[in-house]
Amino acid sequence: MPYAEHTVTVDASISVVWDLLVDVEGYARIFPPTQDVKIIEGDSTYQIARFVVDVNGETATWVSRRDIDAGRHVIAYRQLETAPIVGRMGGEWRAFPFGADRTQLVLTHDFETREAVDGKVAGRFSPEEADAMLHAAVERNSVADLNAVKSEAERLVAEPA
Amino acid sequence: MPYAEHTVTVDASISVVWDLLVDVEGYARIFPPTQDVKIIEGDSTYQIARFVVDVNGETATWVSRRDIDAGRHVIAYRQLETAPIVGRMGGEWRAFPFGADRTQLVLTHDFETREAVDGKVAGRFSPEEADAMLHAAVERNSVADLNAVKSEAERLVAEPA
Repeated sequence: MPYAEHTVTVDASISVVWDLLVDVEGYARIFPPTQDVKIIEGDSTYQIARFVVDVNGETATWVSRRDIDAGRHVIAYRQLETAPIVGRMGGEWRAFPFGADRTQLVLTHDFETREAVDGKVAGRFSPEEADAMLHAAVERNSVADLNAVKSEAERLVAEPA
Repeated sequence: MPYAEHTVTVDASISVVWDLLVDVEGYARIFPPTQDVKIIEGDSTYQIARFVVDVNGETATWVSRRDIDAGRHVIAYRQLETAPIVGRMGGEWRAFPFGADRTQLVLTHDFETREAVDGKVAGRFSPEEADAMLHAAVERNSVADLNAVKSEAERLVAEPA
């Protein structure tokens, strides 16, 4: 199964970074492609949330479950309903304290392209096209999402609310 | 200045990973392109070592200083003498405990291509060629080096000496 790990150093304490990661409804403010996130149910240990996201100019929607381990600073996410070309999408946000005022932020993905039906994925793409699109999206979104959290965390440190 | 961060999850405790990272003369055993490493001087806090490495089929040699922060599990390295196309090469190995028996291993690079002399870098390459070669080498070596440490650490856990 395809698997990817990406990382970035954030010049903010782990508590600043962690608060951003847990506030899933705030993702619409941080991640430019994310238009809306609403928690359907949850508590301090998990969230089930509906995401509305612009994917290559089209609005996609999916539901994710996020299991929150505040002790280890890990959020394990997986899409319960997936976007049209996605068969499986999951992974982890991990935050590691790096001294008192820096954080090593890691984002992992494990994923599968959706199975083709009558030779087409999502009615439109060959399996190879869909695979390439999904790999490219994971690569692009990993870099964008990590940098979005980094920018917002560093902005909060520079300009405390 | 170009900057890159890469990461991998290692299924071994941080002490196993850290011992591998500190044992710089052992790199010739772990990293296939590394033919020989000799410590010129050092103690528990730093090492100055000469590396002999196969780079694209040619033997390159350089001297690196490594500052060892055992408390934070960080080794900051920089080449004192650089390979022919390299103007500056430095970065950090960082290891973070991820539970008791896993480690998040991070490798960062900040680097510059060597300045051209009479339009050529190392007497042979245009600045654009040298830049592209160095970026590709950093990308390729990051993935290879992280996976080499991961493989060796996981082998040690599976088959204790």
